Amino acid sequence: MKNTLCGFSLLPSKNLAERMLNDPQKENLYPLDSRRRIRELGIRIGTLEPGPYNAITDVEGVRVGHTTIIKGEDRGAVRTGVTVILPHCGNIYEQNLFASYFNLNGWGEMTGMAAVEETGKLKTPIFLTGTYNVGIVYSAVINYLSKINPNIGNAAQTVNPVVAECFDDFLSDTQSRQISEKDVLMAIEKAKSGTVVEGAVGGGTGMTSFGFKGGIGTSSRKVSDKYIVGVLVMANTGSRDQLRIDGVPIGKEIRGFKYKYGKTRSIILVAATDAPLLPYQLKKISKRMAIGLAQTGAISHTGSGDILLTFSTANKIPLNKPASFQNIKAINDFWITPLYQAAVEATHEAVINALTAARTTVGRDNNTAFGIPLDQVKKIMKKYLRIGEKNYE
Amino acid sequence: MKNTLCGFSLLPSKNLAERMLNDPQKENLYPLDSRRRIRELGIRIGTLEPGPYNAITDVEGVRVGHTTIIKGEDRGAVRTGVTVILPHCGNIYEQNLFASYFNLNGWGEMTGMAAVEETGKLKTPIFLTGTYNVGIVYSAVINYLSKINPNIGNAAQTVNPVVAECFDDFLSDTQSRQISEKDVLMAIEKAKSGTVVEGAVGGGTGMTSFGFKGGIGTSSRKVSDKYIVGVLVMANTGSRDQLRIDGVPIGKEIRGFKYKYGKTRSIILVAATDAPLLPYQLKKISKRMAIGLAQTGAISHTGSGDILLTFSTANKIPLNKPASFQNIKAINDFWITPLYQAAVEATHEAVINALTAARTTVGRDNNTAFGIPLDQVKKIMKKYLRIGEKNYE
Amino acid sequence: MKNTLCGFSLLPSKNLAERMLNDPQKENLYPLDSRRRIRELGIRIGTLEPGPYNAITDVEGVRVGHTTIIKGEDRGAVRTGVTVILPHCGNIYEQNLFASYFNLNGWGEMTGMAAVEETGKLKTPIFLTGTYNVGIVYSAVINYLSKINPNIGNAAQTVNPVVAECFDDFLSDTQSRQISEKDVLMAIEKAKSGTVVEGAVGGGTGMTSFGFKGGIGTSSRKVSDKYIVGVLVMANTGSRDQLRIDGVPIGKEIRGFKYKYGKTRSIILVAATDAPLLPYQLKKISKRMAIGLAQTGAISHTGSGDILLTFSTANKIPLNKPASFQNIKAINDFWITPLYQAAVEATHEAVINALTAARTTVGRDNNTAFGIPLDQVKKIMKKYLRIGEKNYE
Amino acid sequence: MKNTLCGFSLLPSKNLAERMLNDPQKENLYPLDSRRRIRELGIRIGTLEPGPYNAITDVEGVRVGHTTIIKGEDRGAVRTGVTVILPHCGNIYEQNLFASYFNLNGWGEMTGMAAVEETGKLKTPIFLTGTYNVGIVYSAVINYLSKINPNIGNAAQTVNPVVAECFDDFLSDTQSRQISEKDVLMAIEKAKSGTVVEGAVGGGTGMTSFGFKGGIGTSSRKVSDKYIVGVLVMANTGSRDQLRIDGVPIGKEIRGFKYKYGKTRSIILVAATDAPLLPYQLKKISKRMAIGLAQTGAISHTGSGDILLTFSTANKIPLNKPASFQNIKAINDFWITPLYQAAVEATHEAVINALTAARTTVGRDNNTAFGIPLDQVKKIMKKYLRIGEKNYE
Repeated sequence: MKNTLCGFSLLPSKNLAERMLNDPQKENLYPLDSRRRIRELGIRIGTLEPGPYNAITDVEGVRVGHTTIIKGEDRGAVRTGVTVILPHCGNIYEQNLFASYFNLNGWGEMTGMAAVEETGKLKTPIFLTGTYNVGIVYSAVINYLSKINPNIGNAAQTVNPVVAECFDDFLSDTQSRQISEKDVLMAIEKAKSGTVVEGAVGGGTGMTSFGFKGGIGTSSRKVSDKYIVGVLVMANTGSRDQLRIDGVPIGKEIRGFKYKYGKTRSIILVAATDAPLLPYQLKKISKRMAIGLAQTGAISHTGSGDILLTFSTANKIPLNKPASFQNIKAINDFWITPLYQAAVEATHEAVINALTAARTTVGRDNNTAFGIPLDQVKKIMKKYLRIGEKNYE
Repeated sequence: MKNTLCGFSLLPSKNLAERMLNDPQKENLYPLDSRRRIRELGIRIGTLEPGPYNAITDVEGVRVGHTTIIKGEDRGAVRTGVTVILPHCGNIYEQNLFASYFNLNGWGEMTGMAAVEETGKLKTPIFLTGTYNVGIVYSAVINYLSKINPNIGNAAQTVNPVVAECFDDFLSDTQSRQISEKDVLMAIEKAKSGTVVEGAVGGGTGMTSFGFKGGIGTSSRKVSDKYIVGVLVMANTGSRDQLRIDGVPIGKEIRGFKYKYGKTRSIILVAATDAPLLPYQLKKISKRMAIGLAQTGAISHTGSGDILLTFSTANKIPLNKPASFQNIKAINDFWITPLYQAAVEATHEAVINALTAARTTVGRDNNTAFGIPLDQVKKIMKKYLRIGEKNYE
Repeated sequence: MKNTLCGFSLLPSKNLAERMLNDPQKENLYPLDSRRRIRELGIRIGTLEPGPYNAITDVEGVRVGHTTIIKGEDRGAVRTGVTVILPHCGNIYEQNLFASYFNLNGWGEMTGMAAVEETGKLKTPIFLTGTYNVGIVYSAVINYLSKINPNIGNAAQTVNPVVAECFDDFLSDTQSRQISEKDVLMAIEKAKSGTVVEGAVGGGTGMTSFGFKGGIGTSSRKVSDKYIVGVLVMANTGSRDQLRIDGVPIGKEIRGFKYKYGKTRSIILVAATDAPLLPYQLKKISKRMAIGLAQTGAISHTGSGDILLTFSTANKIPLNKPASFQNIKAINDFWITPLYQAAVEATHEAVINALTAARTTVGRDNNTAFGIPLDQVKKIMKKYLRIGEKNYE
Repeated sequence: MKNTLCGFSLLPSKNLAERMLNDPQKENLYPLDSRRRIRELGIRIGTLEPGPYNAITDVEGVRVGHTTIIKGEDRGAVRTGVTVILPHCGNIYEQNLFASYFNLNGWGEMTGMAAVEETGKLKTPIFLTGTYNVGIVYSAVINYLSKINPNIGNAAQTVNPVVAECFDDFLSDTQSRQISEKDVLMAIEKAKSGTVVEGAVGGGTGMTSFGFKGGIGTSSRKVSDKYIVGVLVMANTGSRDQLRIDGVPIGKEIRGFKYKYGKTRSIILVAATDAPLLPYQLKKISKRMAIGLAQTGAISHTGSGDILLTFSTANKIPLNKPASFQNIKAINDFWITPLYQAAVEATHEAVINALTAARTTVGRDNNTAFGIPLDQVKKIMKKYLRIGEKNYE
């Protein structure tokens, strides 16, 4: 679980990763310094320990990069971006990873899924963005992969990029689509291991979730000091009254900070693990992210595109030759339950982190999504015996 | 939602339905009269109202019957049985209902699923039983259906019964398999609308769940006074420390009543609704039962056969002719979310009812599964502000 | 089956539709006038009768448009394009159609499939193009749909375009991707009912199949003078020795016209029908296209993206309100087999038409894909008793 | 591919395996000695070479056993039985094999499929029988497996037997169900490697296919002298006019031997291979059996239960410990196409062998299913240039 292979690795942040971000925003009702990860509020979800960064990047080789696009105000305001997950340090097109997805509610898009299911493998980085950016990102990825893999095509095979979306139209003027190929490349270039910036960044810039500002969240869990499961979400789903943190009905208890928002919509969930899992086992992990999501109160309402993808870094499968492989590793099914628990807990926490890390954001037509008020969260969690008095463990 | 079509209909029980049951059991650490449904303890799960019986039978025409088999003690003790759900008052083989299932974790058996998926329809009653009884029940159902439908075969079509199982070996000597065709027919004959007996009855007689005695549980929810969703489960899954009721970590707080038990295993969930849904929509409802199950803390551990089936009584499709149908009804996808919520809530409550209704049961080799201690449940729920002080709604 | 709603309707061509096409090509070893549909050679596949155009456009309201892009020679030669299928005469985003797909071998891309599966419906036109054009087409479609449906977004729902691809790199310089949004719009504008131009046109411009020039092919079958099933394919799959026409081993018998070609790759198949079918039934039709494809000798080799999509025009489901629908029509499952046969036959013939209609094409690096030699086809079919002597019917 | 591990191994039969069978039948319009495998008629399907027995048993360790039940005449005549495939020489419950299935048309039953999909593995022998025998066989298998694996249950896991069916009611009085647990055990005991008896034996005793007597058929193909793919089918599907052999419209050409028969129904197809394939790859092989089936003219009509299961003997996965495996082997996806071809060819030939090997059988109510007339088959194949003049290879 050391995380040194892929370039410079930041020390674990003591505070919120977003503090390191310099993108200015118009208004900061909840300014940068006040945002926290849920664990920084003294709230622990589940019983397993997180990895050093409590992030998907705790899985060795996994890197995350964001391009955050904040332009204009009023009618033409753009609050969008792209987040990329690089699954390992090498060339993912040449060294594939086993992967499998699950559509909890497939009312959305994650391109490349037919190929993931067919080949049992991930062959491209994973991109998260706004709905209307999918085509542009898709083209950029094809360009990028063709450049670094001149043999694409010669090798009698092509590539189907993985690009997933949520709809960020409440805050962003989706029609303008001011994202470019350069933005996509920049996200790739900036991808790094270590701390992951969360909240209103990258693909999550314009997302809202559970009636508050949402976006990118991440978390991880260690299993028997041997394996790690990391989850990263782009959260744009759930209504306020549904929100639960560790079972506490936070959404119903919070006062104020209401705003008129269109129905929130979708959530993309990506899990990475260094545990050696075969595709049929990775599908099970994907399903457990659905269980973790359910624990946050989301019921996957109609119109929500809740697509869940998991990959394992343990077996690197070369794209071509040899004709057969001899040393594939896999967990025995009867030992897999702790990985399920890890996926459930990390998902639960990643979804909550997307909320607690996201600042209040003003976007298109002055639409405003408030960051969830952390003081209230803390108070309510205390009232429901989840801080200080958690005596059941 | 009137429930008068299918024979005698009991008034809603003010107390636990099981009180009406006369099957004696060897020991009643928690005797019959002390068992309750969770709602009888003053605990409400979710925000929608249940139907008059708070049971799957609130869907008009749905009937439930149990045969409970309690024989012998010590080594050869049998604690098993069969529960049947009759989907409507008529001949289900001749008047089919749309149906669809979802395998949350398919480590188990529900026969007939290939045909449900292929035809989008349910053509037989649904049977829940112990793992080793599946073959016997399957044969009995074929016999039964052939007798009441002499044309099976002539009509150039056969039937694939729906028989689902959990493994009741902790309490029952599964090898002896003392169930007979007669037991299956008796369950059908006894099936009735109205109150459903819960807990250690029928297929649930030998089941354990979340480290306590489990079995049959049911609940329902009304949607806009127009539709109803009812859920019935055979609960044999989950470990004690996972158990949550309305988000409260009950399993971690309860003291005592521990016993050595093999890993619990599986859960079968069946939903019925009178809302007009097409097969692809019923699959969504099945997935929402998974969300409701997740809210009880279950993570669908390895080895658990978590199979979820939903049918709608709104469209009755005649088996043969005419060549096409003109008046199929269906909900608009954009109005379906309340039905999701109903399925989530009813599932959550049905799983908990299976626990609170089930008495302590002594079975094979004097293995004992304790009924969850209701006094503790009540106390813990109060401590976590779920009784009396639930001020958030 | 009248085809008069959507603008000007050509009379059925007595000869090859492509004759009406004026795109010049560099070399015509098999010049335009010599190309034929397989039926024009006196060869009948199957026993059902085709519709008036023997095309997917025989399903009332279905229109097909092509943009064919032929630019440059040698290294930078572009032979690509886009083909669009407009599923009905109205606004498909507002009036959805039931649809379902099947991945025979999902090594390719058809975007929008998660949403088709989730909603059971098609909400966008269907686009067929080269692999590297997918992103551009996707963006163009989003633009187009947003313009004609200003409420997208307001309606709290977005849209996931259906864009499918095969890899046309043998003839086209895929890196240059000289397709633009305008090309996509032009295909939509030119879409019409009636005769469908086949072969090296639209998305099929650069495709090869069974070791010959491939591309777009179509065919249709009538069922009991009541319903019609039409199929359109973009054929880029199969090796020469596999090719069968009506069971005759054409590929092994043909002499000459060999060329060095990369492994061909994929095939996209789209079926339309006016028979009222629900999504679960449309999946069955999609599977039957796989059977028709199998009859042409294709075994769906590794790397082939064989994705099959079927929609029905019989039920038009309004995107929003009302809350429920009362008059959905559906075929009784027991009467569906003739539709299966229609889908099998039309698929078989459509794949062959893609070959017999496609001219020899010279593309990138002077790579040449020969049109299948029709004289030899005719001779071999005669030798194997399929012309003139077909005495078995 | 040596076949010596599992007991006595017969030399390859020069003629029809069934000649070794001593079950007398009432009438032999086509007596035993006149039946042949299609290859014995001089007809080769495909281009790959079969294994030594041209049977599923060419995969080392795979054994096949039949119990054929022929009792009574007229109304109560029973023509049924059970066929078992033992997947390897050891204890399949303790040493599992990777497996995956595909439902071409799931209108039938193959129990145990949820568990196969969930675990990616086969843990029981595979049983083929008549529809109404499924329950009895299921119970017998549970009994059998419990006896030879006393730890079932202790190991906190149970077993879901694989029992598949077709409907043999045209020839057999299905209501009487004169099959017993002993019949099932006998099939297991008699299972052997080497020659497989085909036609009207075991589960195939009462089956009809393509308007002729059907039943059990098998075939195999070698791939690069390294791997073998074997297929065994229980054929009860297809109408006479659809039947093709190597593309030749046999069904339309054959004269006479017509009889009134109910619509035939289903086909179960099982493939075994010693090629190391992971579950997601085995699903691909299962799909190729559908392609092979399509080549015989079957279109998988409504009501047909066409279920296809493939397992690989290359990786034996111990049921319990260790926690992870280190040496799983797998084919590179890019080398898998020859295995596809093998599966297609072996399936095609196995289906035809089921016809050519099956004798005319008189059953219930004197219903008679004629064995396909081999003299006509030969003559027609010659007329269509498939014998002697096959000059294209």
